[in-house]
Amino acid sequence: MWDKIVECVPNISEGRNRETIEAVVGAVKAVPEVRVLDVESDPDHNRSVITFAGTPRGVKEAVLALFREAIPRIDLRVHRGEHPRMGAVDVVPFVPVRGVTMDDCIALSREVGREIWERFRVPVYLYAHSATRPEREDLAAIRKGEFEGFPEKIKDPSWAPDFGEPVVHPTAGVVAVGAREFLIAYNVYLGTDDVRIAKAIAKAVRGSSGGLRYVKALGFEIKERGLVQVSMNLTDYKKTPIPRVLELIRREAARYGVAVVETEIVGLVPQAALDQVVEYYLQLRGFNEGMVFERRLRAALEG
Amino acid sequence: MWDKIVECVPNISEGRNRETIEAVVGAVKAVPEVRVLDVESDPDHNRSVITFAGTPRGVKEAVLALFREAIPRIDLRVHRGEHPRMGAVDVVPFVPVRGVTMDDCIALSREVGREIWERFRVPVYLYAHSATRPEREDLAAIRKGEFEGFPEKIKDPSWAPDFGEPVVHPTAGVVAVGAREFLIAYNVYLGTDDVRIAKAIAKAVRGSSGGLRYVKALGFEIKERGLVQVSMNLTDYKKTPIPRVLELIRREAARYGVAVVETEIVGLVPQAALDQVVEYYLQLRGFNEGMVFERRLRAALEG
Repeated sequence: MWDKIVECVPNISEGRNRETIEAVVGAVKAVPEVRVLDVESDPDHNRSVITFAGTPRGVKEAVLALFREAIPRIDLRVHRGEHPRMGAVDVVPFVPVRGVTMDDCIALSREVGREIWERFRVPVYLYAHSATRPEREDLAAIRKGEFEGFPEKIKDPSWAPDFGEPVVHPTAGVVAVGAREFLIAYNVYLGTDDVRIAKAIAKAVRGSSGGLRYVKALGFEIKERGLVQVSMNLTDYKKTPIPRVLELIRREAARYGVAVVETEIVGLVPQAALDQVVEYYLQLRGFNEGMVFERRLRAALEG
Repeated sequence: MWDKIVECVPNISEGRNRETIEAVVGAVKAVPEVRVLDVESDPDHNRSVITFAGTPRGVKEAVLALFREAIPRIDLRVHRGEHPRMGAVDVVPFVPVRGVTMDDCIALSREVGREIWERFRVPVYLYAHSATRPEREDLAAIRKGEFEGFPEKIKDPSWAPDFGEPVVHPTAGVVAVGAREFLIAYNVYLGTDDVRIAKAIAKAVRGSSGGLRYVKALGFEIKERGLVQVSMNLTDYKKTPIPRVLELIRREAARYGVAVVETEIVGLVPQAALDQVVEYYLQLRGFNEGMVFERRLRAALEG
């Protein structure tokens, strides 16, 4: 295992053309110090999410290789899909995983952002922890207006790109690059078919309406199962851990006489977020990695 | 990481003489396909517990190396200590960890047991899952009478050793060798100083008095903290998982108006036992190893 590991989750505006997706993913796979962990393509959104991890150097090389393949192949002038987008490569987040700090990832995002502009002439916005102004922390605020609105938006001095001239790339638009925490997609299913309860609970727990700071939540009906779902993104599990979110939902649901039926994690979850769950529910004293047989053995094998 | 991993936790009857302990541990460490994970020496018990892991071949080699160093150095005729014992090497358990079944470990214990007799002339009792008779499953039943009583006990045909002649080794006694599940030492602290409550709960949850099948439990007073403790060995966490044990204790404690203050795992715990905790408390649907970022990455790096 590498000493320093960064996760990178670029979103590209192509979810239908297999040849394009394979070319872009193939460019990432060809980088030695990187491993592709997941590729999710959504034809309705016409968007693919590529999850990979590697050394800082490998990740940088892989992002530039991804741009090299994506820019000539994806033309936003003819792109249609449900998901909002402003770039052929829409967003490139860097996530510190092991042996690297958030500051390291911010530095990496600036380095990669500068090269994206210099090599591909795509204007770059630094977002999330890399943002240079508070209003650029939120990706949705940057993306507002989308590809079609950006030739106008980019002329506004307050929306000048962080790297590059204020001229949108004709086919590839602009891109957001930044460092962020690991994002966990977590859904809680409730034993009722009344979607108003899911919506009320989502509102109660999400940060934007007074709930937990790093929770984004929506309520949905899951018709085929006769259940409802509180669908969440946990944007900083270190500060707003899974068990605290779930227990708050259990309490809120109890107000309506409703129980949690099951929960699901969509995509990947870091081991540390599961360790939090163990510590919380077991009220565990002095938990550390060295107590876990496999991790102790791995440390013994590696050191 | 090796494809096949067996854990081995030999107990030797020496917890004071550092030179002897280091010689015995050093013999294990010298085996390439093995890693020593933990050594716990208790001077009062005059006993050391050595935890190591390796390939089946490495583990076999390491046990024989351990005997080679231990037998000439440990003389049970002059051994005094609080812990009951019948051999210089008292017990050698093999635990399947990865890529090996319980049957593989039973076969390994028989192979190693035969060699222990042939090379060192120490009679061998197969115990736990390797036992050849039901009354030999329990280590305490085999050990009853200890070193001092064994010259008489071994003449009883029903206590004839599984390997070797019915004659105790003059200085090294006899040894129990067998395959068992991973043993988890788990303690629950209760917010009371009334040790009767800990004892009553221990009795309620342990298998021998009607509780959960694979729980051994005792109640203790922890004077310096003004608390009491239910101290447990979980002998098969796959069938009696940690969360079920803890929840039963929480319910029993509530009968006395007492709460769980904290819990602790002593020594090592397998990752799968912690995964059970996560699945249980999150009511998690479709949990699998591939969802955990680090494990997915490791799998990608290894294969």
